[in-house]
Amino acid sequence: MEKTLLKSLWYKYRSRWQDSHSLLCIGLDPDLTQLPECVLNEKNPIWEFNRRIIDATGKYACAYKPNLAFYLRDGIRGLEALQLTVNYIPEYIPVILDCKVGDIGTTMEQYVSAFLELMDFDAITVNPLLGTDLLKPILEREDGFAFVLTLTSNPSANDFFIKENMAVKIAKWLNNFPPEKIGAVVGATLVTQLKEMRELMPGRIFLIPGIGAQGGDLDAVMHYTKDSDEFPNILINSSRGIIFQDRSPKFAQAAEIAAKNLQERIEIYT
Amino acid sequence: MEKTLLKSLWYKYRSRWQDSHSLLCIGLDPDLTQLPECVLNEKNPIWEFNRRIIDATGKYACAYKPNLAFYLRDGIRGLEALQLTVNYIPEYIPVILDCKVGDIGTTMEQYVSAFLELMDFDAITVNPLLGTDLLKPILEREDGFAFVLTLTSNPSANDFFIKENMAVKIAKWLNNFPPEKIGAVVGATLVTQLKEMRELMPGRIFLIPGIGAQGGDLDAVMHYTKDSDEFPNILINSSRGIIFQDRSPKFAQAAEIAAKNLQERIEIYT
Repeated sequence: MEKTLLKSLWYKYRSRWQDSHSLLCIGLDPDLTQLPECVLNEKNPIWEFNRRIIDATGKYACAYKPNLAFYLRDGIRGLEALQLTVNYIPEYIPVILDCKVGDIGTTMEQYVSAFLELMDFDAITVNPLLGTDLLKPILEREDGFAFVLTLTSNPSANDFFIKENMAVKIAKWLNNFPPEKIGAVVGATLVTQLKEMRELMPGRIFLIPGIGAQGGDLDAVMHYTKDSDEFPNILINSSRGIIFQDRSPKFAQAAEIAAKNLQERIEIYT
Repeated sequence: MEKTLLKSLWYKYRSRWQDSHSLLCIGLDPDLTQLPECVLNEKNPIWEFNRRIIDATGKYACAYKPNLAFYLRDGIRGLEALQLTVNYIPEYIPVILDCKVGDIGTTMEQYVSAFLELMDFDAITVNPLLGTDLLKPILEREDGFAFVLTLTSNPSANDFFIKENMAVKIAKWLNNFPPEKIGAVVGATLVTQLKEMRELMPGRIFLIPGIGAQGGDLDAVMHYTKDSDEFPNILINSSRGIIFQDRSPKFAQAAEIAAKNLQERIEIYT
């Protein structure tokens, strides 16, 4: 296999799944107002926090997903923390930047160069509204990968995804692009929607946000979106439910327990 | 008037229009591969470039619009250049960050805090796909302002904006939100589309990209989207057509001439 392919999210995800039997994606959303007090006096609190979270949860993670907003909120120091974080995560665990960008032409090329090349992420999340043009810089890179927003579960997802049927339209449109390059962000909502999304997008990796540590929706998600036993093609994301379990100096151990518990619950279905 | 309102883009735009009679928005998209050689050896090439462009074009600018992608592409140094740029632009000229973000809950709050508070932009561009939830942090701030992507003019704008009628749907949906907080990004395309967009969104500020220094579409844009003589409610954006006219050490003078020419062409209609 080509070296560039070995570096792609598609390959890394499958390899990590086979090695770890984990489908857990840990969202690194280091909200400054929620960080444990013990890291606040560090030179770079977000980096210190992430480093300890990664040390504690690495063995349960199929992937990590930092969200750009939380890093930019801390300015230059935040961008430094983001770079240190992606550098620190072991090469065999895919790292997805949640940035939901969606632009065209040279602008999109700049985002893709910045995130996949300069910062060395394995994949980004993108917003599809501007159409095919925005995927070009991803498709042109041999190791390019993007998760396209297809359905979200926030209250106003109704405005366009549901009421205007955009979720179905985006899902169908994605059939123009290879699953080796393009995955889908699919919010955990109604069972009928989950079923429909998988029927419209077989073989594509689903990044599924909104599963808390308690995992109330996990049952439906696993039943209706698991693709095959060999390759489930899902990543179950949990952010606050794992990283903000505890704000004491033992926050990392608490995150480890939460990650372990959720991953064990996921494993029942695989 | 409240101090916070005086700081808002809505007020600044109207005030700048009255003072300068300019409707020109200058896009600061400092593509590293396009920068003049004479700035490349500076400690921070993008900042050096922007500083000289702003010095030369300030008197013709109704607003500036840096695009986040080009700054992130230069890493930490790029983010520093972005902050220096927004700090340097005179307080009375509005600065719009073109970032096309669109997220929800605490994530969107983080973006809005980062861009409007920490970095002190007057407005951001946003992608509306996730619905009303994403505008909340903008609406909640007294000085909050966002330009919502409503129609773009790239080839694949057809995929969703046109074929799926999303441009019209977004324009109608925007009627739920006050023009003092929410503007619209409207790509310069067909005359019928420009007319329809203004009919659906009277009183709202249009940010209109895609007008080159040659300004082929300017006539249609000015005829069909100008709102009233008192307040035209448009910003005509030009990026490369102004800032990359010349790559010699005289690049700033060339940008000044291009800005002057385009603004003079715009003024004919006002």
